[in-house]
Amino acid sequence: MARAAEVSTATVSHALGGTGRLGESTRRRVREVAAALGYSARRGPRTRTLGLAVTTYAGSPWNYVEIAYFSRLLTAATAAAHARGYALTLLPADRGAEPLWHDLAVDGMLLLDSPAGDPVLRALRARGLPVVFDGRPPDPRPGDVWVDNDHEATTREVLDHLAAAGATRIALHSAYGREYYTGAVTSAYAGWCAERGAAELVVAFDPQDTAGHAFDPVFAAPRRSRPDAVYCVYDPGGRQALAAAARHGLRIPHELLLVCASEDPSYAAGEPPVSTVTLRPEVIGERAVGALVALLESPGAAEPGQLTVPAALTVRTSSRARGGVPRL
Amino acid sequence: MARAAEVSTATVSHALGGTGRLGESTRRRVREVAAALGYSARRGPRTRTLGLAVTTYAGSPWNYVEIAYFSRLLTAATAAAHARGYALTLLPADRGAEPLWHDLAVDGMLLLDSPAGDPVLRALRARGLPVVFDGRPPDPRPGDVWVDNDHEATTREVLDHLAAAGATRIALHSAYGREYYTGAVTSAYAGWCAERGAAELVVAFDPQDTAGHAFDPVFAAPRRSRPDAVYCVYDPGGRQALAAAARHGLRIPHELLLVCASEDPSYAAGEPPVSTVTLRPEVIGERAVGALVALLESPGAAEPGQLTVPAALTVRTSSRARGGVPRL
Repeated sequence: MARAAEVSTATVSHALGGTGRLGESTRRRVREVAAALGYSARRGPRTRTLGLAVTTYAGSPWNYVEIAYFSRLLTAATAAAHARGYALTLLPADRGAEPLWHDLAVDGMLLLDSPAGDPVLRALRARGLPVVFDGRPPDPRPGDVWVDNDHEATTREVLDHLAAAGATRIALHSAYGREYYTGAVTSAYAGWCAERGAAELVVAFDPQDTAGHAFDPVFAAPRRSRPDAVYCVYDPGGRQALAAAARHGLRIPHELLLVCASEDPSYAAGEPPVSTVTLRPEVIGERAVGALVALLESPGAAEPGQLTVPAALTVRTSSRARGGVPRL
Repeated sequence: MARAAEVSTATVSHALGGTGRLGESTRRRVREVAAALGYSARRGPRTRTLGLAVTTYAGSPWNYVEIAYFSRLLTAATAAAHARGYALTLLPADRGAEPLWHDLAVDGMLLLDSPAGDPVLRALRARGLPVVFDGRPPDPRPGDVWVDNDHEATTREVLDHLAAAGATRIALHSAYGREYYTGAVTSAYAGWCAERGAAELVVAFDPQDTAGHAFDPVFAAPRRSRPDAVYCVYDPGGRQALAAAARHGLRIPHELLLVCASEDPSYAAGEPPVSTVTLRPEVIGERAVGALVALLESPGAAEPGQLTVPAALTVRTSSRARGGVPRL
């Protein structure tokens, strides 16, 4: 629009918002172009389209759509948008921040796993575009709206479950993303360990590490110092841990307990069946779309605020104590 | 763009294409506005966004995203678009034809199950937007590009399988959509029946008919005239047939053989496991995106033309002859 009116984006913003020090002819010209293009004074053209982006994985060599959490959330968000008469535009992970985010023809954005210092978020805020976060933003502002799980409570539930099944040295397979999820899980783990005087053991997740070589040093350690349980906080991590355990001859659950945060049904069908934590992406996608449409259509109403969706731990063979007796 | 330049869309088309009888000042004005908005001469702004619409179900009271065929295709198409650096905009079924389709900010469209006389297709053709069809268009034009299964061959394979398992009166659960799929399956069924001198029996599918009441008249008929096999050509149809068979005390496969075209894994897990035909939506979505991006990025290269993806029949208990002997 700024290009059509041959002015800067700041001038457009001032002209439409009635702010700044603009000549009357400039203000009139911008408003005429805006009217011709179907802009309203408060935001861009009513496209009846919502955008969805996952911004923490820019530059990753893999496709977030192939992760079950995201594909399930995308499907649910699409259905929820359509049910409300909106299209949904799914952005690839590696779009640069400029100038796409200024021009993107959407009425509002769902931002998934926005990392600290997210340049996309900065561009969207500058444009004044309504945003709903899936995953609390690391640096929230007053009025921010998000949908998330209680990652601290969920992490403690998993660790308590592993401890009750006999684990004494629990490793966390984590430390990949810069979004809130990774930080919340990791700090809950650190707090839980500190309360028990247990040593922290974080194995670095890498999506490319399909054989789980990151586990080699700790799985090769003598029995007394190697972990007897692993909580994988990313979906592909469970398969990596299974591959590494097989290579090192560690039987699950006899010598190693395993829980993975995942929405992939193949974990339940494998041998052994793997305990999983579901973050319930279908519910999150539906609620996030509902909150964004509420922001768009009832801007004067009460803000949707922050919504917490309960996660759920499903215990399977991979983390069951044999005979119900704590091991070792 | 036409609004910004205060001319008709036809004038824009003539001005950018160098056709028609326009004054030089009009032509220049349109081209200046076009340049300011980032339009190229051949098509709209390069949004690096593809659109996807399912146009045969406008006005339906259900959401196409909830059908496994479409949700799987959407996921695969999104991943394929992202892998090529494109966003994908998923449109709801009930968008009207005007004026959305003139303004939609996409470089090209995937049109799924476009019905005969599709007003959306007309609007996209008028705009000159590249289109790739999933499901052959009912009235194709030279140069049209589509990805589809061979529905005639697949239908005959299913009917031959049911006949080999002992069926003598096969009903088709169909006749809902106006897209090519329904017509192709129904006419293949009619041809197959005619070759054998068998009577046609089409039971009308209705997505709202969850209890399968459409089957009541034929299932209540005397044994000699009631169908001994059903091929359901829509995903929810198998569940409707199962509900109706249970109500009428017809055991599957003993008194009724059943095959359903479906991508829903719950058919394999149910009791009895139901034979299904997969149309392989993941492959179709991937190929369709590939063809559309080829049209956009290599317009001078050989046209992708028409791609045929093989469907696959998986035989389960619901259509197995008992003891391998033809029944009756």
